[in-house]
Amino acid sequence: MRVGVIGGGQLARMMIAPAEELGLEIRVLAEEPGMSAALAATATGDYRDLDTVLAFARDVDVITFDHEHVPQDVLAGLVSAGIAVHPGPEALAIAQDKLVMRETMARIGAPQPDWAAVRDADELAAFLEAHGGRAVVKTARGGYDGKGVRVVNAAHEADDWFTALAEDANGGALLAEEMVDFTRELAQQVARRPSGQALAYPVVQTVQRDGVCAEVTAPAPGIGGLAEEAADLGLRIAEELGVTGMLAVELFETADGRILVNELAMRPHNSGHWTQDGAVTSQFEQHLRAVLDLPLGDPSPRAAHAVMINILGGPEGATMAERFAAALAAAPDAKVHTYGKAPRPGRKVGHVNAAGPELDAVLASARAAAAAFD
Amino acid sequence: MRVGVIGGGQLARMMIAPAEELGLEIRVLAEEPGMSAALAATATGDYRDLDTVLAFARDVDVITFDHEHVPQDVLAGLVSAGIAVHPGPEALAIAQDKLVMRETMARIGAPQPDWAAVRDADELAAFLEAHGGRAVVKTARGGYDGKGVRVVNAAHEADDWFTALAEDANGGALLAEEMVDFTRELAQQVARRPSGQALAYPVVQTVQRDGVCAEVTAPAPGIGGLAEEAADLGLRIAEELGVTGMLAVELFETADGRILVNELAMRPHNSGHWTQDGAVTSQFEQHLRAVLDLPLGDPSPRAAHAVMINILGGPEGATMAERFAAALAAAPDAKVHTYGKAPRPGRKVGHVNAAGPELDAVLASARAAAAAFD
Repeated sequence: MRVGVIGGGQLARMMIAPAEELGLEIRVLAEEPGMSAALAATATGDYRDLDTVLAFARDVDVITFDHEHVPQDVLAGLVSAGIAVHPGPEALAIAQDKLVMRETMARIGAPQPDWAAVRDADELAAFLEAHGGRAVVKTARGGYDGKGVRVVNAAHEADDWFTALAEDANGGALLAEEMVDFTRELAQQVARRPSGQALAYPVVQTVQRDGVCAEVTAPAPGIGGLAEEAADLGLRIAEELGVTGMLAVELFETADGRILVNELAMRPHNSGHWTQDGAVTSQFEQHLRAVLDLPLGDPSPRAAHAVMINILGGPEGATMAERFAAALAAAPDAKVHTYGKAPRPGRKVGHVNAAGPELDAVLASARAAAAAFD
Repeated sequence: MRVGVIGGGQLARMMIAPAEELGLEIRVLAEEPGMSAALAATATGDYRDLDTVLAFARDVDVITFDHEHVPQDVLAGLVSAGIAVHPGPEALAIAQDKLVMRETMARIGAPQPDWAAVRDADELAAFLEAHGGRAVVKTARGGYDGKGVRVVNAAHEADDWFTALAEDANGGALLAEEMVDFTRELAQQVARRPSGQALAYPVVQTVQRDGVCAEVTAPAPGIGGLAEEAADLGLRIAEELGVTGMLAVELFETADGRILVNELAMRPHNSGHWTQDGAVTSQFEQHLRAVLDLPLGDPSPRAAHAVMINILGGPEGATMAERFAAALAAAPDAKVHTYGKAPRPGRKVGHVNAAGPELDAVLASARAAAAAFD
């Protein structure tokens, strides 16, 4: 069986290991040479070009993705050519546009923050007035890791984005969301096969720094009955939206004990990297099984607690190789993952996992290894 | 950091996953196209040809191996060219010749069966007479998975091998060993870095069928105080022989509670495949860390029990893909590994791992998944 992955980033890279272990063949269409998934890159080219993508997709059993940016016309062209695409274009359309996502969550009755599509500063001003003078404003498309997201206290603070929208032939709107009084952020992952089987991972706690996922604890400590609620919500979203492969539902947990949908990602997700060393079936293996419509693996944790800490490119100084050796020495039980990327400041270049029976010890191991990269 | 692996078989393949996860670059010199480790095969050629090997080894930080068959003159040529080779030629010389191995074990006082180098039928007859009329006879070189090993009850039963030896310009002898009255077979793995750090994995129980490893249980059930003895023996052998990378010491456990060295392997070994899903650090990750002289990872088990069952190419019938899906469905908690090899009867084409708190349940999962391939 042969899987084709569009996009050569670290998520594609991390599919290579389980593909090799299961015995699947994996091929990657990378944006350029030397990317994280270079080992499996059988083609290099522009994923926005249908001919490039069709040539790559010849002879694979399924096409899946490192990211959600493949344009709908390219997805439609693949489907027209009879190529299995998972997740499919309809599901991806929801992940590609935050306004469509909000509309869809509203349609299926998923709990979410108050929101509105705002076409100009007046509409944003009205939203601000109705929500205590503060809101989160997001561009509908193209944002990730804190990009395209802004907290505003006055309508003019989004003027540049409105100007850009006005210049765009497609027009459109920004997404305004209430500032949620959340106590912490959670993430719920589920896997779903085209033929319907779906399984939920334990809900995890995520800590963001500067809009980037920094630390994940699995399962979310002290989650209680919200665990089942989150799992049910994730499974329902996957089912109603027809998601295939891995789905991550980023959630806010509120002070009054509710969970609200923040974002969706239809691919393996940073909040699930802990599964590589903390779950019986990693999210990357599960994604491959799901998109190939193979029986899903057990998503149970391997240990009572698991922690994932991202490694960001740090200040100049020691080389990556020196830091790497120091990280391995600092915590022999931590699992150090690096992505073969140049360590620019703030860039995600790897992560560290640890798992075990005692949360304090697991946290200490993961932090000791991660600190070697600072 | 860049590792070059000579040999494109499944052991090289299984180094690819941890190399990608750690963030190392891995290159493989495969014997031919389409082998198990094809994904990382940057070169194809004859590992017995020094020029081929030197060209492959250019620009890597260390050369290591999928097998122990690289000739000493090629190894010497690599070392002369200033290339780090682990395990090194002196250690590999011991793994390449069973007579040298026996002499070396005798020199360092490692417990082993009675043995003798026998140059002709008369010497074998004398050995048989001294050992109850029965012996195991082995060719000194080239045997594996039961090949080059024969139980004989009369000296003439090895005549074909003596004839072959007589025709060989290098002469030589066969190895005769007493038939050990063993209760079971064990395997002790250790990892050792060039700079000296060494760690032992828990000793495991191995069950062979037709000379091929069939099932491994980790740790060896009911092993008691022999566990420490086996670990100490493995560490001592690695140290005294200067082994770098992974060392497997196959052992007999005798009815009177001793352990005796059966065979040595200086590479990841079938008896350690359980570590992929049952140990904090897999033998393949550990081998990479060791040969690069990086700090070793924790060799502790992740669960109380782990079981590995080999998948052999079965009878004609269902395709490998159908069997694969059935195996995944049979045991969602089992980890199915296949090697991308054509499933000829009796050929090792994969293995199944399972791990967990209850041995019965772990065995049942592994056996259910493996049975799908029968």
